[in-house]
Amino acid sequence: MSKKIKLGLFGFGCVGQGLYNVLNQTEGIKAEILKICIKNADKKRALPAEYFTVEKNEILFNDDINVVVEMIDDAEAAFEIVKTALQNGKAVVTANKKMIADHFVELYELQQQYNVPLLYEASACASIPIIRNLEEYYDNDLLGAVEGIFNGSTNYILTKIFKDNIDFATALKQAQDIGFAETDPTLDVEAYDPKYKLCIILAHTFGLFVKPEEVFNYGIQNLSTFDIQYANEKGYKIKLVAFCRKVDNKIVAGVLPRFIKPENKLYNIENEYNGILVESAFTESQFFAGKGAGSNPTGSAVLSDISALTYNYKYEYKKHNRGAKVELTDNFSVDLYVRYSTANPIDTKLFSKIKESYANTDSAYVVGTINFSDLRKSDLLKRKDINLIVAADSKFEAIQNNVASSKEAVEIC
Amino acid sequence: MSKKIKLGLFGFGCVGQGLYNVLNQTEGIKAEILKICIKNADKKRALPAEYFTVEKNEILFNDDINVVVEMIDDAEAAFEIVKTALQNGKAVVTANKKMIADHFVELYELQQQYNVPLLYEASACASIPIIRNLEEYYDNDLLGAVEGIFNGSTNYILTKIFKDNIDFATALKQAQDIGFAETDPTLDVEAYDPKYKLCIILAHTFGLFVKPEEVFNYGIQNLSTFDIQYANEKGYKIKLVAFCRKVDNKIVAGVLPRFIKPENKLYNIENEYNGILVESAFTESQFFAGKGAGSNPTGSAVLSDISALTYNYKYEYKKHNRGAKVELTDNFSVDLYVRYSTANPIDTKLFSKIKESYANTDSAYVVGTINFSDLRKSDLLKRKDINLIVAADSKFEAIQNNVASSKEAVEIC
Repeated sequence: MSKKIKLGLFGFGCVGQGLYNVLNQTEGIKAEILKICIKNADKKRALPAEYFTVEKNEILFNDDINVVVEMIDDAEAAFEIVKTALQNGKAVVTANKKMIADHFVELYELQQQYNVPLLYEASACASIPIIRNLEEYYDNDLLGAVEGIFNGSTNYILTKIFKDNIDFATALKQAQDIGFAETDPTLDVEAYDPKYKLCIILAHTFGLFVKPEEVFNYGIQNLSTFDIQYANEKGYKIKLVAFCRKVDNKIVAGVLPRFIKPENKLYNIENEYNGILVESAFTESQFFAGKGAGSNPTGSAVLSDISALTYNYKYEYKKHNRGAKVELTDNFSVDLYVRYSTANPIDTKLFSKIKESYANTDSAYVVGTINFSDLRKSDLLKRKDINLIVAADSKFEAIQNNVASSKEAVEIC
Repeated sequence: MSKKIKLGLFGFGCVGQGLYNVLNQTEGIKAEILKICIKNADKKRALPAEYFTVEKNEILFNDDINVVVEMIDDAEAAFEIVKTALQNGKAVVTANKKMIADHFVELYELQQQYNVPLLYEASACASIPIIRNLEEYYDNDLLGAVEGIFNGSTNYILTKIFKDNIDFATALKQAQDIGFAETDPTLDVEAYDPKYKLCIILAHTFGLFVKPEEVFNYGIQNLSTFDIQYANEKGYKIKLVAFCRKVDNKIVAGVLPRFIKPENKLYNIENEYNGILVESAFTESQFFAGKGAGSNPTGSAVLSDISALTYNYKYEYKKHNRGAKVELTDNFSVDLYVRYSTANPIDTKLFSKIKESYANTDSAYVVGTINFSDLRKSDLLKRKDINLIVAADSKFEAIQNNVASSKEAVEIC
């Protein structure tokens, strides 16, 4: 019934070592590691030397190996490995979100062409089984939205800021010191990492394959003490929220910081935890939370994928294969807080409606309704003295003939 | 690839009607309703008369029908329907937790014998896909615990008590008035309903089939304003928590009210929502939340089961079939708050350790460590002037030679 898995691993860092340990400890999963491809042959390893090789073809063309687990950093090198493995009829498990987002259509087609599964639960929100749930449990066309905190590093930084009342630079430094943020934190802090995950979520939520370049991302790099004080005064926290949502039969998507009220379930998602809200016509709001980063949560998702392969599980991409036409749109309105230097005013004509404005001698802000497609073209995005945060009560409304449609208005709570 | 589902429904209340509507609205799920068996032929229905029958065999022996959806209240009548359907090779979807808990082994064996699936996601925590996740995603032997709020009615009552500062009787009345509690609320209030759900969860978490009688349940029926005030003073809420947990390679399980601190994810699960914490060696704590009652959340789970049947999904009961020997034990210690009338003292020898005690002229309480098997035999359970609540920081520790083993100690946070 369930088949024996013979594994070839690429990379043997924390996740790989954890995987080795757990496979040794659990009788339930019939899988063994045959070979591990590493870059540095000289590094001391916890396993006997015969496990290791520096030659990738010893795994990719090894007939005894039926599953490849790819755990290397370089997205392009990873893609070549995954592609060759699939072409050789080997199932693949990966956590490489950038690789998937960059090559999603090719990877989808390779799976169809060679009839082998590629599983990647660990790529989006690590330990939270969101892809499997979207694929299997919410396999209908009733999904309305998926949104949440997809990045553990920035959530750790934002948690420190609000808990310890420190500024962004100090919090970033602390996160780097304990290994929760990279030395070059751009991918996390500027919201590229959650965007790659959002691209994966989009395919399994709405059947939509998009290139990362098509999806808007704005991070927390410009967060100032002024912004933090504004949030504190209102009783909000700030979270970096990735969202995708059906509005007027099109899909809106992006990653932006957002003010979060205490009654929002994301408010209490702290540190390296991720949280995901799934809205469906019948279930209303479902909530998932768990650790979104770290070798154990990632390892557990990899393990679950390996286990699923023992009973020949594969993603069926049901929403995509159903063939319903959906497309991404930027033609929707959002309520935005825009903070800028008082000395360097912004063009308020960008806003169709201004709800709040304030200025002191240094800083000023406007809260107003803006067309998302205007925002994406705006030079506000380039200015270092500006920060953008989605308003806590923002609606995402379709714009038709310059009139926001109230029919499809949805509140985010 | 996916097969066409022809449905026979038993019962046509809110869930059934919602199901009919959604099947009409969604193109994604290839299922149609052929026949609906109802009790009362004279009641006015929203569908044409030819859909309805009062004769159950018109569904059970109808060769065109391949899936039976059972949505009636009576657990014994439901079991006869489900049994006959399975014996006739029809897949069954049900939400009837009592029926499953009462006849679990028979239902498991019927599925094996006739090789037909019985799905029941809606039976435990309605819209939360907990069974599917335990079965498919956490299909390994690394699970340590599953616990949470499994009953929407009592959670609604407890939410009202703490939000509006009212007493139990008033809150129960309010819940009954808006339909969130039954006229006879015993099943919910005395924690039988969450116990049935726990029996289902036990099979999919640890592979353990137990009779409901074997599992301890203590509800919120004796909750007094004194208890509520105690919780308020400490900054706690009280939640009715069902739990199962591996302690020293045995399983402890039960349903009891528990004091909950603000940092516990269950603290913010309010009204009719349910929340579930899943602890696994590698994922640490995973959290699921969603509506646990109501026709839409229940309908959505039924819908997901129907959809799963289009690709021949069935529960594999992997943990049970793996054959690992696990058994339920009551031989563990728990920290308990016991409130009683000062006029009618309790025997404090029950406690191996007393951590706190208090008395005024009317009410008194003790917080102490107690052996769960002693508690189950104790006459404390029968006294109406007594209430039992698990302490917020209680550990569940195995007891060996009357010495609590610290090795397996686990904190609930």
